[in-house]
Amino acid sequence: MIYGERAIENPIRWAMVGGGRGSQIGYIHRSSALRDFNFELVAGAFDIEAERGKDFGVNLHVNPERCYPDYLTMFEREAEREDGIQAVSIATPNYTHYEICKAALKAGLHVVCEKPLCFTVEQAEELESLAKEHNRVVGITYGYSGHQLIEQARHLIANGELGDIRIVNMQFSHGFHNVAVEENNPSTKWRVDPKFAGPSYVLGDVGTHPLFLAEAMLPKMKIKKLMCSRQSFVKGRAPLEDNAYTLMEYENGAVGMVWSCAVNSGSMHGQKIRVIGEKASIEWWDEHPNQLTFEVQGKPVRILERGMGYLCEEALREDRIGGGHPEGLFEAWSNLYRRFALAMKEADQGKQVDFWYPDIHAGVEGVRWVENCVRSADNGAIWVEYK
Amino acid sequence: MIYGERAIENPIRWAMVGGGRGSQIGYIHRSSALRDFNFELVAGAFDIEAERGKDFGVNLHVNPERCYPDYLTMFEREAEREDGIQAVSIATPNYTHYEICKAALKAGLHVVCEKPLCFTVEQAEELESLAKEHNRVVGITYGYSGHQLIEQARHLIANGELGDIRIVNMQFSHGFHNVAVEENNPSTKWRVDPKFAGPSYVLGDVGTHPLFLAEAMLPKMKIKKLMCSRQSFVKGRAPLEDNAYTLMEYENGAVGMVWSCAVNSGSMHGQKIRVIGEKASIEWWDEHPNQLTFEVQGKPVRILERGMGYLCEEALREDRIGGGHPEGLFEAWSNLYRRFALAMKEADQGKQVDFWYPDIHAGVEGVRWVENCVRSADNGAIWVEYK
Amino acid sequence: MIYGERAIENPIRWAMVGGGRGSQIGYIHRSSALRDFNFELVAGAFDIEAERGKDFGVNLHVNPERCYPDYLTMFEREAEREDGIQAVSIATPNYTHYEICKAALKAGLHVVCEKPLCFTVEQAEELESLAKEHNRVVGITYGYSGHQLIEQARHLIANGELGDIRIVNMQFSHGFHNVAVEENNPSTKWRVDPKFAGPSYVLGDVGTHPLFLAEAMLPKMKIKKLMCSRQSFVKGRAPLEDNAYTLMEYENGAVGMVWSCAVNSGSMHGQKIRVIGEKASIEWWDEHPNQLTFEVQGKPVRILERGMGYLCEEALREDRIGGGHPEGLFEAWSNLYRRFALAMKEADQGKQVDFWYPDIHAGVEGVRWVENCVRSADNGAIWVEYK
Amino acid sequence: MIYGERAIENPIRWAMVGGGRGSQIGYIHRSSALRDFNFELVAGAFDIEAERGKDFGVNLHVNPERCYPDYLTMFEREAEREDGIQAVSIATPNYTHYEICKAALKAGLHVVCEKPLCFTVEQAEELESLAKEHNRVVGITYGYSGHQLIEQARHLIANGELGDIRIVNMQFSHGFHNVAVEENNPSTKWRVDPKFAGPSYVLGDVGTHPLFLAEAMLPKMKIKKLMCSRQSFVKGRAPLEDNAYTLMEYENGAVGMVWSCAVNSGSMHGQKIRVIGEKASIEWWDEHPNQLTFEVQGKPVRILERGMGYLCEEALREDRIGGGHPEGLFEAWSNLYRRFALAMKEADQGKQVDFWYPDIHAGVEGVRWVENCVRSADNGAIWVEYK
Ligand SMILES: NC(=O)c1ccc[n+]([C@@H]2O[C@H](COP(=O)([O-])OP(=O)(O)OC[C@H]3O[C@@H](n4cnc5c(N)ncnc54)[C@H](O)[C@@H]3O)[C@@H](O)[C@H]2O)c1
Ligand SMILES: NC(=O)c1ccc[n+]([C@@H]2O[C@H](COP(=O)([O-])OP(=O)(O)OC[C@H]3O[C@@H](n4cnc5c(N)ncnc54)[C@H](O)[C@@H]3O)[C@@H](O)[C@H]2O)c1
Ligand SMILES: NC(=O)c1ccc[n+]([C@@H]2O[C@H](COP(=O)([O-])OP(=O)(O)OC[C@H]3O[C@@H](n4cnc5c(N)ncnc54)[C@H](O)[C@@H]3O)[C@@H](O)[C@H]2O)c1
Ligand SMILES: NC(=O)c1ccc[n+]([C@@H]2O[C@H](COP(=O)([O-])OP(=O)(O)OC[C@H]3O[C@@H](n4cnc5c(N)ncnc54)[C@H](O)[C@@H]3O)[C@@H](O)[C@H]2O)c1
Repeated sequence: MIYGERAIENPIRWAMVGGGRGSQIGYIHRSSALRDFNFELVAGAFDIEAERGKDFGVNLHVNPERCYPDYLTMFEREAEREDGIQAVSIATPNYTHYEICKAALKAGLHVVCEKPLCFTVEQAEELESLAKEHNRVVGITYGYSGHQLIEQARHLIANGELGDIRIVNMQFSHGFHNVAVEENNPSTKWRVDPKFAGPSYVLGDVGTHPLFLAEAMLPKMKIKKLMCSRQSFVKGRAPLEDNAYTLMEYENGAVGMVWSCAVNSGSMHGQKIRVIGEKASIEWWDEHPNQLTFEVQGKPVRILERGMGYLCEEALREDRIGGGHPEGLFEAWSNLYRRFALAMKEADQGKQVDFWYPDIHAGVEGVRWVENCVRSADNGAIWVEYK
Repeated sequence: MIYGERAIENPIRWAMVGGGRGSQIGYIHRSSALRDFNFELVAGAFDIEAERGKDFGVNLHVNPERCYPDYLTMFEREAEREDGIQAVSIATPNYTHYEICKAALKAGLHVVCEKPLCFTVEQAEELESLAKEHNRVVGITYGYSGHQLIEQARHLIANGELGDIRIVNMQFSHGFHNVAVEENNPSTKWRVDPKFAGPSYVLGDVGTHPLFLAEAMLPKMKIKKLMCSRQSFVKGRAPLEDNAYTLMEYENGAVGMVWSCAVNSGSMHGQKIRVIGEKASIEWWDEHPNQLTFEVQGKPVRILERGMGYLCEEALREDRIGGGHPEGLFEAWSNLYRRFALAMKEADQGKQVDFWYPDIHAGVEGVRWVENCVRSADNGAIWVEYK
Repeated sequence: MIYGERAIENPIRWAMVGGGRGSQIGYIHRSSALRDFNFELVAGAFDIEAERGKDFGVNLHVNPERCYPDYLTMFEREAEREDGIQAVSIATPNYTHYEICKAALKAGLHVVCEKPLCFTVEQAEELESLAKEHNRVVGITYGYSGHQLIEQARHLIANGELGDIRIVNMQFSHGFHNVAVEENNPSTKWRVDPKFAGPSYVLGDVGTHPLFLAEAMLPKMKIKKLMCSRQSFVKGRAPLEDNAYTLMEYENGAVGMVWSCAVNSGSMHGQKIRVIGEKASIEWWDEHPNQLTFEVQGKPVRILERGMGYLCEEALREDRIGGGHPEGLFEAWSNLYRRFALAMKEADQGKQVDFWYPDIHAGVEGVRWVENCVRSADNGAIWVEYK
Repeated sequence: MIYGERAIENPIRWAMVGGGRGSQIGYIHRSSALRDFNFELVAGAFDIEAERGKDFGVNLHVNPERCYPDYLTMFEREAEREDGIQAVSIATPNYTHYEICKAALKAGLHVVCEKPLCFTVEQAEELESLAKEHNRVVGITYGYSGHQLIEQARHLIANGELGDIRIVNMQFSHGFHNVAVEENNPSTKWRVDPKFAGPSYVLGDVGTHPLFLAEAMLPKMKIKKLMCSRQSFVKGRAPLEDNAYTLMEYENGAVGMVWSCAVNSGSMHGQKIRVIGEKASIEWWDEHPNQLTFEVQGKPVRILERGMGYLCEEALREDRIGGGHPEGLFEAWSNLYRRFALAMKEADQGKQVDFWYPDIHAGVEGVRWVENCVRSADNGAIWVEYK
């Protein structure tokens, strides 16, 4: 149970790149990082438009002098300060992640980076090496994975309650982009343009989320082959897809499916994962995150609720309010940022944490999956060896 | 609204082959056919074991003399009677359908045949020709398709409420065969043996059901290509699969997916269909058949309930009880058998009905789909032209 | 499992009073009685308008000569026949039940009577005596109580799985009469007129249904005191109520609540029962009758599904199709009519059945409850001793 | 949309009384107040045990000198500081609220007080006067009422979409205290002891929550009469109840019901409110707070989702993340604390805010309701005039 007490001695001095006023995902970064004083927002390059970014930063109670016009200036100036930043979060459009992340690591900063980490596995592995070399933490904000019931799922699977895993069905399929909303919406506009979004739209934008849930729940499963079929239903989005099916074969003989979609008319979010074992299945749906379905064949379906005493320790220790009360996405993110803080502190002392979190490797794996999907899709939706 | 009144002047004299005591699907045939006196059960070859079949028939109030040891004898003897049977339902294991159906048609009988109609498209088309030649009705018991809300879905789509159709996601994925239950269960045993089940297990056994729901809702869509990946998780089932994913491309550019599964541990039935259009989606789940979800992008999700005045005429005319009261699978089947009866009566007078029902062509198409799936799967889960 | 085999040697010769074309509840009587040949429809006085009733009867395949203008004539003429009726179902408006039931019992017939049995406890007890005297079965069509999961609930409670029972919350609250639909709807018109409906509207019309579910689940609980507050929201319905709350104290210290309502705008049916014990609760909702929620405090909620092997024997023996497939209201009614048939057959031989069904006593108790509710309500919604 | 920007120029200097380590509700106060820097935690008397409280405060990054042994000392010392506290939140057991709140108001502080405000209407009105006199804000943490969909419900009702309101059904009925957990749980122990809890247990502890939701949605409805029946199922809790039904008549002819319960075995939370009008109903359930059901009679049920463009402005302006993503209880509380901050700032300038929030009057009304319920219950569950 979290009561807001100090997790680390002193809040980490922290800045943001991007996530400015009106951005989709900036606020949840701040709200999660600042919760319980694990981080302290002391600087930022919040916006592509420097003035707007500064105005915004000041409104966030950041010292105006530390509201920078761009990230390079920020890294430079902050490096000169005694009390300069120790960590930075990157919440900008995809195409900037690689450069900003590289610069941050070179500046000796811990990083929290939005997914996708970058555009190619080559870049991703370069960043991974860099992080290792500099002994820096890079957390990736697969935010949903911070929900406590993901821990419970992981625990049930590790405990053998499902038996051998056979099938993993994933989806993230919303309907918000059923028509060309990009014409009037800047947050969508860059997403459907390969220059800014990278080699895929929905595969990277939404598909990688449940993919990482699967990685978190099933850390041992390795993809062997996959095939991906992608479509661009809204004209003008091609070559980027707004719908994709990916089928996968895992090394242990299991199979998986990811349905990534932004044209699923009427669907609110549609992120679900179902892991099917020989004996039982579990299912989780992010729109109702406080419930985990546990279905043992031949027994009544059971609905596990966050916060209840029958859950495993890992699923309980990050609770912030008793069972029955609904927690939401902010708590999931707060859990991740808390783990990032702990990992950063340990890293500073040359140590490692004994819990998992979406780290740089998760970032690399997300990029790898997209790359493999695109390779398959662009070759006629053929099966490709996973590499 | 159906009050039980005469739909046709005189009940059709009817017999069954198979569907004996302990069979899975025999009772629902009888219960549906006999409802409201559209059919009258006057003869039968109910069981592979003649004695048990006779005993059973007598218990069903069938004249003992008309409880036959096998279907050939039945067709022969009944043909000699003034009051001989006019129609026969076939509810035996798959491998017998072709021969029994052929014999029935040649005997001048109308037929209701279980799916799959037979094992190959060639056989299926032969039966289709035969039916045409003899002017006989062949109804196929895709029972779920008789639910009134399938009519409503069809109506909404035809009316353009969804806009252009883009995606059709189907699944029928239960968990009852997660382990080798066939060892002790005769109804499962033949299903996993290619000699008796045909070239597929779950593709034909369950996958064809939602496939036909899609055909009923979307009569104009034609499959162009498909790929199928199938697995046999329970040892000893190979070459027959207990799990399969089929991806499809339709001629109009839409895509589809069918997940067929019998090892989905803990799932009760898992038959669902979601049709996604440019503007809206509809979703139906057979475990809660009285509700149809209608989701217009940007509007609150709407839940349409069977029996309500806001539904289209076609969705209301087969109601048997007011909205709110739950109808179930028996009503869906009763609707089909009612349509079969009407179609048989019209056919006898050289006429055709002006409503749809799962007819011999639906039977052919189910066989075709399985054949294409198997061809894809057996060639390494490659994309194949649909033929 | 029911396969349609003979439950009794010969179908019971059966007639209906009321339940004519366009009536709400007539068809489900026929469909349930005729299923599996436990009854045979041989006569009827189906309609208040004799001609329409005859025309309807003929359409139901009843011999025109046995389509009678009124029930008295029917009882008289049928008594003269060798093959005269043995049982009759009464599906007419409330005010006629007492007279018709009395006449039927005096004519030596078994009866299936719609609820409410009559208007006063005095009348009800008179009918009960009459039934006893003539050794006739009177079944009451609390149709929902025939669902197999009601057996499971009863079983769990009897088995002590809930611990001591503390609270019983019931409701039947639909919205179909939110405005004065009676102006155009004959089926509603008589319901809101005390001459035809009796001393209550929703209490008797809907409230008695979940009340009987409670009686079926909790045969030992006795009401000690109650208070009822009733309202007539739609003008012109007073003194009959379209909404009522009834609070109850049981002799064992438990409490109960029934919410009866016909103005619950937007609600489809809203029949629910929740039984709360010291250790666990069960909940059942008639709109999704194939699921029973079983909630043990401190354990994950479990959803029990009809047809599954983990249910008790009583909950399985009336299944007609495997678990997963939805059964509906027709099966629940069919179960009751089957039990009625068995009970009638045994009664004819001076024997009694060893299973429960809603019998004349259930009818009496329903009338008693309404009478007590009205007495409370009409005295200012005060607590009254139950009598 | 909230991006975390300054809502008021400077964070309000704020302290807590109670809410210490291990307390149920302390953390959500802090997490909500501190979010977005509307408040700054600078002092506290967090615990009945001074040492533990100090240790805890320090861990919350509070200056050790400002971690006080008790609230009186705190109010005194802080009053002496330039930078002394401006507001205080009271999260202690019920019996202390009156004294602490009075002291705080007399010390010129704004207050956030837990419900119930105090034990008697007399006390409550005294506090109300005091607040008025000192021009201080007193916010009451009916936390669920801060959910944005409560605004939407209020809006739909005010807009006449439901028509005249007829019925309001409320419940808060969990199962966590089905047995005498108080024996081992200090947070429950005081709740069932009238010295510490006041004249009621569940009525005040849970029942007042949905009651306030109704007040928020239906600001014009006034209770005229009520009756309350309460029970103590777990021995040793009497005279305090662990279950209660309250029936109410409103001045406009509507009726209402509140079911308050802590022995609803297996139920997680069970807070629901259903408002039924002549034309339509709305329903909200706190366990799935992002959905609001809107049911127009004769139309398909509609499910309104938080964050969607079709909602009213008031329901959108406090969103922190897009629709589809789940928000939870913390966001609801954060909304309230934000409104409290705005109201405090305005009050300091002698102004009033133009939005509603649970204020001292809401506190008074909660106490009044409990007082009336207890008066009814203790007189034999009779109807009493509301006063
Ligand atoms: N983890 C998740 O659940 C999740 C959800 C949404 C978005 N994302 C990811 O977050 C990132 C941002 O997405 P978004 O939807 O918030 O985008 P957005 O377009 O809404 O906002 C982008 C913000 O970055 C700023 N920006 C752009 N370029 C910049 C630069 N060079 N320097 C500084 N600021 C710059 C913009 O001014 C804007 O404030 C993307 O990579 C996206 O994939 C992740
Ligand atoms: N439409 C549906 O929803 C649905 C559901 C289940 C089964 N089915 C189909 O129905 C058919 C039967 O399946 P089932 O599960 O009831 O099988 P089952 O094994 O449970 O029963 C088969 C019955 O057929 C009898 N039989 C076998 N060979 C016979 C013969 N030569 N002559 C006469 N009787 C014979 C057996 O004695 C038994 O009574 C299959 O084709 C299956 O695919 C359809
Ligand atoms: N068990 C249930 O779930 C359920 C549901 C609905 C109705 N009911 C009960 O069933 C009864 C009938 O209700 P309904 O809604 O079907 O009514 P309805 O008004 O729809 O139909 C009544 C039928 O009875 C006929 N009738 C009337 N008086 C008659 C008479 N003297 N002789 C012969 N026929 C006569 C009418 O012509 C009509 O066909 C009522 O007592 C009602 O409470 C029970
Ligand atoms: N708004 C809500 O949803 C909600 C939910 C739960 C509790 N509550 C209310 O919050 C209050 C606290 O409930 P809880 O469940 O957190 O109680 P708790 O027993 O869990 O915690 C009470 C805390 O107050 C401290 N305390 C007790 N007396 C004190 C004093 N005189 N000075 C300083 N600290 C003192 C204790 O040490 C403890 O830390 C109650 O009034 C309760 O009704 C409200």
